Amino acid sequence: MSNTYRAIQEECLFANLSLPKTGLVDLTFGNVSVADPLNRVFAIKPSGVDYSRLVLQDIVVLDFEGKVVEGKLRPSSDTPTHRYLYLHFPGVRSVVHTHSRSAVAFAQAGRDLPCLGTTHCDYFHGAVPVTREMTAAEVGGAYEWETGKVIVERFQRDNINPFKVSAVLVRNHGPFVWGEFGGAAVERALALEIVADMALRTLSLNPDAPPVPAHLLDKHFSRKHGANAYYGQR
Amino acid sequence: MSNTYRAIQEECLFANLSLPKTGLVDLTFGNVSVADPLNRVFAIKPSGVDYSRLVLQDIVVLDFEGKVVEGKLRPSSDTPTHRYLYLHFPGVRSVVHTHSRSAVAFAQAGRDLPCLGTTHCDYFHGAVPVTREMTAAEVGGAYEWETGKVIVERFQRDNINPFKVSAVLVRNHGPFVWGEFGGAAVERALALEIVADMALRTLSLNPDAPPVPAHLLDKHFSRKHGANAYYGQR
Amino acid sequence: MSNTYRAIQEECLFANLSLPKTGLVDLTFGNVSVADPLNRVFAIKPSGVDYSRLVLQDIVVLDFEGKVVEGKLRPSSDTPTHRYLYLHFPGVRSVVHTHSRSAVAFAQAGRDLPCLGTTHCDYFHGAVPVTREMTAAEVGGAYEWETGKVIVERFQRDNINPFKVSAVLVRNHGPFVWGEFGGAAVERALALEIVADMALRTLSLNPDAPPVPAHLLDKHFSRKHGANAYYGQR
Amino acid sequence: MSNTYRAIQEECLFANLSLPKTGLVDLTFGNVSVADPLNRVFAIKPSGVDYSRLVLQDIVVLDFEGKVVEGKLRPSSDTPTHRYLYLHFPGVRSVVHTHSRSAVAFAQAGRDLPCLGTTHCDYFHGAVPVTREMTAAEVGGAYEWETGKVIVERFQRDNINPFKVSAVLVRNHGPFVWGEFGGAAVERALALEIVADMALRTLSLNPDAPPVPAHLLDKHFSRKHGANAYYGQR
Repeated sequence: MSNTYRAIQEECLFANLSLPKTGLVDLTFGNVSVADPLNRVFAIKPSGVDYSRLVLQDIVVLDFEGKVVEGKLRPSSDTPTHRYLYLHFPGVRSVVHTHSRSAVAFAQAGRDLPCLGTTHCDYFHGAVPVTREMTAAEVGGAYEWETGKVIVERFQRDNINPFKVSAVLVRNHGPFVWGEFGGAAVERALALEIVADMALRTLSLNPDAPPVPAHLLDKHFSRKHGANAYYGQR
Repeated sequence: MSNTYRAIQEECLFANLSLPKTGLVDLTFGNVSVADPLNRVFAIKPSGVDYSRLVLQDIVVLDFEGKVVEGKLRPSSDTPTHRYLYLHFPGVRSVVHTHSRSAVAFAQAGRDLPCLGTTHCDYFHGAVPVTREMTAAEVGGAYEWETGKVIVERFQRDNINPFKVSAVLVRNHGPFVWGEFGGAAVERALALEIVADMALRTLSLNPDAPPVPAHLLDKHFSRKHGANAYYGQR
Repeated sequence: MSNTYRAIQEECLFANLSLPKTGLVDLTFGNVSVADPLNRVFAIKPSGVDYSRLVLQDIVVLDFEGKVVEGKLRPSSDTPTHRYLYLHFPGVRSVVHTHSRSAVAFAQAGRDLPCLGTTHCDYFHGAVPVTREMTAAEVGGAYEWETGKVIVERFQRDNINPFKVSAVLVRNHGPFVWGEFGGAAVERALALEIVADMALRTLSLNPDAPPVPAHLLDKHFSRKHGANAYYGQR
Repeated sequence: MSNTYRAIQEECLFANLSLPKTGLVDLTFGNVSVADPLNRVFAIKPSGVDYSRLVLQDIVVLDFEGKVVEGKLRPSSDTPTHRYLYLHFPGVRSVVHTHSRSAVAFAQAGRDLPCLGTTHCDYFHGAVPVTREMTAAEVGGAYEWETGKVIVERFQRDNINPFKVSAVLVRNHGPFVWGEFGGAAVERALALEIVADMALRTLSLNPDAPPVPAHLLDKHFSRKHGANAYYGQR
């Protein structure tokens, strides 16, 4: 095992190991990748390996063209989706995929996750979009690569900034979430499940609950993000 | 205690002990059996014994005609249902029964569990069927044996392949799940509860959420099962 | 501390300590009493004491007329309800009261908990009834004693056998459950919450889900109770 | 570190550390403050610090005019809301803010939390009110201070006694709860989430479930509070 990719492998291992502790993953659903965009490589969890048995040597490294450059195991079957996101959302350093239950409910219901309160605003600047249904040709072809395509298509179609809404719900599947490093992406994946759970409860009380007004959304998002943030310690 | 049945007794004990760890069982509801189809025998949990006190000697062994061939305790009251499944779904090596709450909800509501997303597709090739109501004669007769009959009846009526949909919801009762060994059947029982929980949440958001298209179902099921599977390590 | 009441005090302490482990109690809501009907006394948890600090000396003993015969602490404020049940359901040896959340939901919704499946049948022979609203006079008078009265009134009005349906939902309040000893009553209180949770999920899928047919109810109840029981070990 | 504010800092630290144990807080959402009204100062959690790393020196002390008088870290971004409550509800000694999920659901749905049962009555004398939507001017100005204003406005408009209903739901945000010391306020925040969860379940069974009658509300509240309380030990 060389040292060339050790930093992203360690960050990737650590982020994958933190995932089950969040309660977001059942069985072996879920994976995290961490990229080194300068060197155009990313590290990712191997396919179908139990979190309890995962060690550093298991983490697979691929280049941005999809070639394995280190590791003996087969990478996660979702690898082409991660790769598509790194190529099309430049600046993203980590991608997390889970089947967390309340986020999946919105993906299966085919509904955007609306922004109903400040917990949501603190993490995502507006509704988290759901992708369109994929065609038989897309599913029958390079399915996981095409999954990346429909994600980016939705962000482009509606002019959504992937650095302000750093998550998506893949229709009939589940969430992909990204961030500036592994821990940040995992925390955001957890925040997504929390706000999806809150939204489920809210909509059961009031199916017509409106999204928060724009001024409240902007206020809370900017309390935590950007030049004028005043949440947390500097 | 002879050594003749030791392998299936151990596999059966281990699978039963793993059941409470999944969170699928409340109180003493739930049991696992493991069969040796060549020798036409199966091992099963004794009736009403706490999981915390279960030891190898407690595991009862019966032949496929229903005669106890080893063990001093009374076998699970659901034993005839397990036996019926081994006789009519040849190739099944383990059967799990639980009262897991979301799967029970579909059984009590009298609704098939629809296939709403890829988590479901990864484990079950289509909706998990619910059986019809049993008649007074069936319930008053050899009730647990008749339970097996209505399960197989439903699979035959709708031409469902029990190796592609390895689970059923017994009306007003709960799930039976099967597999190629004890651990696989327990994992599938857990997957069933997870997708039932996801379906409950989805239907609360969108009561008319459609099942996934056939191409997506086929794609995900075949990613994990069959000759062209590419999920996990070889 | 005398030895006269030690047996029921110990059984009462043990049952109270087991209550938080079931997950049925939040904060200090909930209490268990254990009676010695021959000597017309019962032991009960003191009022508002944390389960974590409860010791044998804290358990209060009262006679069936309501006089404290041992113990320095004030008994649970629900004591007169327990006493009323011992006087009017002779044979009951233990009473459990909780505010478990799904059972409370039925009590607050003013709905009997319907018998929708075999998990329910295994413990309760039919719907668990909810009491009527109490009048201002009843609430303003000997409130907890009157609570016992409306419970017994409901059983008498509808000719419900308290040994076949050993639980009630007090309107706008929560469940009281009873049994032949402390552990049995606590187990039944847990079973009540489980079937209430299953019923909530079932009714969200199918608001018109019918109760199980009488033959299935009789079959399952008699598998576990009475002369012809065949569940568990003898 | 001086000793002047040590008592409220310790009470504040202890209350903040107890918060995650209640299960009320996800990530770093939530904070507790403790006041010394005679000296017109209060201690509060620093902004965005993990509960697992919180130590006594981190607790910030401010005077009632909002000036930091001890501590090097930046206080919680919600500090002005806490301060507003201390100034306008004199006698309050501790304020707790959480994003607990069921209470948030009512805040996001824009619905008062109705008093549907005795668990609620034991803690809150009537419905827990939700505040009105804040205007763009309020949100764009001294947002957290204005949040305090809309809370007090709602209590004054409907003549609600903040010592009988010691909690509020800030619209699209979440609960603030207060009490006579840190532990009492945290317990009440937990009770609020419990009764919100019970209310969610109740309303799913019966969307028109009526609030408890006034005589039952008065009875239960006075069992626990005031001169004639008879719950707990004296």
